[in-house]
Amino acid sequence: MPRPRLRQMERAYGFDEVALVPGDVTINPDQTNIEFAVGNHTLSIPILASAMDAIVDPAFAIRLNMLGGLAVLNLEGVQTRYEDPGEILDQIARTAEKKVTALLQKIYSEPIKEKLVSQRVGAIKEAGAICAVSVTPASTKRLAPIAKDAGMDILVVQSTVTTARHISKSYRGLILPELCQQMSVPLIVGNCCSYSAALELMRTGIDGILVGVGPGAACTTREVIGVGVPQITATLNCAAAREAYLKESGKYVSVITDGGIRTGGDLCKAFAAGADAVMIGSPLAQATEAPGKGYHWGMSHSHPALPRGTRIKVGTTAPLERILFGPTSATNGTQNLVGALRTGMGVCSARTIKEMHKVKMVIAPSIRTEGKYFQAIQNAP
Amino acid sequence: MPRPRLRQMERAYGFDEVALVPGDVTINPDQTNIEFAVGNHTLSIPILASAMDAIVDPAFAIRLNMLGGLAVLNLEGVQTRYEDPGEILDQIARTAEKKVTALLQKIYSEPIKEKLVSQRVGAIKEAGAICAVSVTPASTKRLAPIAKDAGMDILVVQSTVTTARHISKSYRGLILPELCQQMSVPLIVGNCCSYSAALELMRTGIDGILVGVGPGAACTTREVIGVGVPQITATLNCAAAREAYLKESGKYVSVITDGGIRTGGDLCKAFAAGADAVMIGSPLAQATEAPGKGYHWGMSHSHPALPRGTRIKVGTTAPLERILFGPTSATNGTQNLVGALRTGMGVCSARTIKEMHKVKMVIAPSIRTEGKYFQAIQNAP
Amino acid sequence: MPRPRLRQMERAYGFDEVALVPGDVTINPDQTNIEFAVGNHTLSIPILASAMDAIVDPAFAIRLNMLGGLAVLNLEGVQTRYEDPGEILDQIARTAEKKVTALLQKIYSEPIKEKLVSQRVGAIKEAGAICAVSVTPASTKRLAPIAKDAGMDILVVQSTVTTARHISKSYRGLILPELCQQMSVPLIVGNCCSYSAALELMRTGIDGILVGVGPGAACTTREVIGVGVPQITATLNCAAAREAYLKESGKYVSVITDGGIRTGGDLCKAFAAGADAVMIGSPLAQATEAPGKGYHWGMSHSHPALPRGTRIKVGTTAPLERILFGPTSATNGTQNLVGALRTGMGVCSARTIKEMHKVKMVIAPSIRTEGKYFQAIQNAP
Amino acid sequence: MPRPRLRQMERAYGFDEVALVPGDVTINPDQTNIEFAVGNHTLSIPILASAMDAIVDPAFAIRLNMLGGLAVLNLEGVQTRYEDPGEILDQIARTAEKKVTALLQKIYSEPIKEKLVSQRVGAIKEAGAICAVSVTPASTKRLAPIAKDAGMDILVVQSTVTTARHISKSYRGLILPELCQQMSVPLIVGNCCSYSAALELMRTGIDGILVGVGPGAACTTREVIGVGVPQITATLNCAAAREAYLKESGKYVSVITDGGIRTGGDLCKAFAAGADAVMIGSPLAQATEAPGKGYHWGMSHSHPALPRGTRIKVGTTAPLERILFGPTSATNGTQNLVGALRTGMGVCSARTIKEMHKVKMVIAPSIRTEGKYFQAIQNAP
Repeated sequence: MPRPRLRQMERAYGFDEVALVPGDVTINPDQTNIEFAVGNHTLSIPILASAMDAIVDPAFAIRLNMLGGLAVLNLEGVQTRYEDPGEILDQIARTAEKKVTALLQKIYSEPIKEKLVSQRVGAIKEAGAICAVSVTPASTKRLAPIAKDAGMDILVVQSTVTTARHISKSYRGLILPELCQQMSVPLIVGNCCSYSAALELMRTGIDGILVGVGPGAACTTREVIGVGVPQITATLNCAAAREAYLKESGKYVSVITDGGIRTGGDLCKAFAAGADAVMIGSPLAQATEAPGKGYHWGMSHSHPALPRGTRIKVGTTAPLERILFGPTSATNGTQNLVGALRTGMGVCSARTIKEMHKVKMVIAPSIRTEGKYFQAIQNAP
Repeated sequence: MPRPRLRQMERAYGFDEVALVPGDVTINPDQTNIEFAVGNHTLSIPILASAMDAIVDPAFAIRLNMLGGLAVLNLEGVQTRYEDPGEILDQIARTAEKKVTALLQKIYSEPIKEKLVSQRVGAIKEAGAICAVSVTPASTKRLAPIAKDAGMDILVVQSTVTTARHISKSYRGLILPELCQQMSVPLIVGNCCSYSAALELMRTGIDGILVGVGPGAACTTREVIGVGVPQITATLNCAAAREAYLKESGKYVSVITDGGIRTGGDLCKAFAAGADAVMIGSPLAQATEAPGKGYHWGMSHSHPALPRGTRIKVGTTAPLERILFGPTSATNGTQNLVGALRTGMGVCSARTIKEMHKVKMVIAPSIRTEGKYFQAIQNAP
Repeated sequence: MPRPRLRQMERAYGFDEVALVPGDVTINPDQTNIEFAVGNHTLSIPILASAMDAIVDPAFAIRLNMLGGLAVLNLEGVQTRYEDPGEILDQIARTAEKKVTALLQKIYSEPIKEKLVSQRVGAIKEAGAICAVSVTPASTKRLAPIAKDAGMDILVVQSTVTTARHISKSYRGLILPELCQQMSVPLIVGNCCSYSAALELMRTGIDGILVGVGPGAACTTREVIGVGVPQITATLNCAAAREAYLKESGKYVSVITDGGIRTGGDLCKAFAAGADAVMIGSPLAQATEAPGKGYHWGMSHSHPALPRGTRIKVGTTAPLERILFGPTSATNGTQNLVGALRTGMGVCSARTIKEMHKVKMVIAPSIRTEGKYFQAIQNAP
Repeated sequence: MPRPRLRQMERAYGFDEVALVPGDVTINPDQTNIEFAVGNHTLSIPILASAMDAIVDPAFAIRLNMLGGLAVLNLEGVQTRYEDPGEILDQIARTAEKKVTALLQKIYSEPIKEKLVSQRVGAIKEAGAICAVSVTPASTKRLAPIAKDAGMDILVVQSTVTTARHISKSYRGLILPELCQQMSVPLIVGNCCSYSAALELMRTGIDGILVGVGPGAACTTREVIGVGVPQITATLNCAAAREAYLKESGKYVSVITDGGIRTGGDLCKAFAAGADAVMIGSPLAQATEAPGKGYHWGMSHSHPALPRGTRIKVGTTAPLERILFGPTSATNGTQNLVGALRTGMGVCSARTIKEMHKVKMVIAPSIRTEGKYFQAIQNAP
């Protein structure tokens, strides 16, 4: 009997499975350039804060922009549903593990107030900071114009998976090319993780894409619906789409790896895989300034019928400035992320992020366990 | 010395090793069609309950069919051995781990009563539900006609491994083509996991095959006899046989992935690998309506000489309706399985189960660990 | 710069990484033939007991042979060093983990008594059992003739690694072809794990080879000197050598997989990989009749300068007959090993061990975790 | 849409993922030659002690050289910063885990005293031992001449990653060819892990390279900056560079695998991968003579802004002589490292280190778990 030809499946890789190979020239960290440009804004560090309630409120957005990065305010979270979100955030932090999903489902059923949308955007702009906000595709038509009027600088349209085409019987999907024309601000869309979806999104005229389905620390999309591509492969895919689109159109669309980055090591690997910037959640949720008070949860966590997230305790470890620039006594890679990026680039002979895109990676799943094995063998008989 | 040519071994994949890739179009979950047809019966949801005593009794079968699915009643379990199976099931739930295998061996040595076979089938039919029952190959000739007379609608012939040919000195094996002719009800046979065995079974005239040897949560076949093929590869194999047989005969035989599905993610992956329906055990054993009272055990567990199963405590977590359709506060994928399937299909651009068969999968073993790593690294020095 | 061509390394597989694929015909277990012939002796079951002090003493050898298998008595263990080995074995069982290696080093420094060699062999022969004994290459010339005179039937020459050629300045290596001529009893030699070493050993005229370097439960050779080949690949290698040698010489040399088998599943896989028989340690150390009293240790454990073993507590679980033939209530594969083999063969369409050699295997490392995952996910938030 | 061609990533292997295959001839351990030559010095054992404060002080260096090996004294550690380093080392050993990184950062901010450099080198030379010292590239010009004047025999220039070219705005990089000319002592440089970087370093005229970025037990470089290549692949890469350079220049540059070796097994594998010698840390930190008093920490641990290390408790287990030559009762491979190397070579048919370079390795990640699985399955229900 002839053997059947089964569907071919490619291997996809995550952060823990690869490692960077040092280059042939060493570059001093202070010689590296890590700027990130989006529209006519240039950030001195290529780090965005996730549009999650545990991480970004107006004060955090202002602080991070002062330090060179960019926070994205979620326009569908507690900040726009409650006059006093601090109280709500306190409640989340105080609630026991078992009851927190039900609580979140209740909290996020409170309607969004348009007035609060204007107020939150206004607060950020008054402080002179760049204001980036996120909306889901279904709410974009309603909320984006309000934010625009209030001074919003960058618009992020984000859901678990966003594609250029959407089929629904209940509402007319968001037409991205129309949105690009209407808005006249840089538009970042996500998330996606494949070459074809990324390329199709780029062709709608957007300025950046968010890469990552399922990898975040507070996300359980993989358990719930089986969907997800590990971040190294997802970033390689989308970076390949960026190069293809650049060739066909002359336009460079930024690739932003979003989710799953926990350490400086992960962050360096995201850039090596092709990211122009990264969007991070849990590492920033540990900042003294984070509104989550040492907790972190996903924004799909509160879905009324199919919650896909988990709340994790991250603790409050250091001020934001120390998490980004050190100095630090933490040796596990969770602090001085910018120093780690510059050091990693120097060791890998990369003067710029674009040179970092060409750094050699190896598949090396064992690499993390080697150092930790010692103590295990010590305890063996 | 020339290197020997060793036997080639192919790599087989399980649920945890693959992930689904989102498609290029997003479809609203309510736009998806997930019907499953077997013979002239059409189920609104493609979910069968395993023919196991911890899951299916007549009341459960009636309830699940009302909700759109189909339960298979095991005609060789406690329901047909005992007038009052509830008492026996209580006893199993109350017995300590160490003694439960011996107890099960004793319980299942009680003879099957033909009168009870008729009664149990009758009870399901009286309630107006579709009645599916399972028998082992050795008991088919004796029990199937009784069930048929009592109104049984669908016959499942099931053992750990069932093939079209069987060699025995003690009895004449079951001749499947004869059985198909005699019964005039849809016939589902299993389990199998390879292309050739599935194709050979299909050629006997059956209507569906059960895919899966060794994967179930309550099964230790792999430890005991080393046999088993992980479910993604097993389903791909049998789906390939279905396509080959469709081409040669024009008949579409249903492929039903049976065993090892614990979450909505696993369930979505089974369909992406080629399943027309799934048969699930442990997720339904958690239902309030499940006769196992929070416990689950395999039907080979009670083999008198070579028990191949384990009893696991699954707990009672929610009514069956909530496990199938939500809403839920569980974020680990064990509830709202239908919602998960529709959402997964929507994200993967699949409007129908047949479109779901073509969804792209990647090999991504790391995907589950990424999210869980965070807390581990937090605790490191 | 051109990429260097690195040495190619092949992938080697162990028991946990493969699984057997059911065949297209099912055969009743009682229709299978599992005889094993060595010289003019035929065993009704293809199971040898390891030449280890925790497993084999004369009484155990007699009992196992009565049950159809064959135990190998180690002529360099406590049985030939002490008049009353029971007392010594008691002492080992009573000694704490931390002190046991030093104790073993002391115990095994007691000289071997030639008189005891004769007595132990004599005891087995008096009971009418087949007597197989093992010696290390360095002691063969001294001890084998004594055992021969006392009636020994089968000679096993065994060390961690034994090759046809040995280079030493202190003594003239054992010349296997000479030994084969002198002894006129079947000769089994080991251990080895590669095609070329096995083929070279076969060409010396021996009757069987023991396959396995480093896999045993009580062996730490891999930690200590880095040497070892997992058992599936090692058995495939040596079985390929057997076929090559059969073709070149017409003689069939038995391949005996020795070490690392803990369950019926492992045992079935060893035969599928090409074994004619298996030699097992830890599963038999659990027998009521085992001299180790619930403990098991390797024979390299007592090396005075470089001990390569560990003592493990296996417990005493059942009489030898039950471990081999059941019935049992253990569901983890450690009892009814013969039933497991016959059942596995039946499911895989193999009537004989030689047909079992052709059974299809897949690489399936995930297979063991699937069943165990359920409880883990249950405990997750 | 055409599939994009993603960057190719090679698989890299670590110690735990490979195993050595026994050869076809067995050689008695006492017939093996394991000498290592560097410049005109010949060591009787190919083992170097890492230039780390927990391992090497002058007394340790003298002792190890007496035993046949070579210790490298770090000229930028506590020995040259403090008159009485013993007191400082006591303080490190007494400090709690959480506070030790901050303490180390403070300790290593004390300036290096040139007088102490001379004194420490002098102490080693007075005892008649070979004196090897290490400096970082940035301090080489200042410290190397002082050590040279004091009698230093071998110079090691070492940092996490060292390349032949270095770009900095603040200082002129170290020019290795100039250094080679000036010093007139054997020069060892590292660390590196790729073929091209190793080859480029060799072309500067050095005598040896240290192989290994990220693998050490006390190193967290992989977490912090994502950089590292597992040691088997790194050693294979650099050994390939050695052969290429030998062919182009006629000069044999030694390859020294540095870091990640915890057992005799790892050590044997390093040589099989191509090492001429090994540099080890944690196994020697356990010696009674080690200045770390049972603790071990990395030299990047004290980086003021981006510490990349961890302090681990290794315990004090045996005198150095026993760790190197046994006899031992430890069965986990951490003692009698030289015996393990000679035994491993004998089993693999290698009379010399150069023959060991050709030993066959297999990829065998499962090999370690097989032996340990037994107890796990025992505890299962």
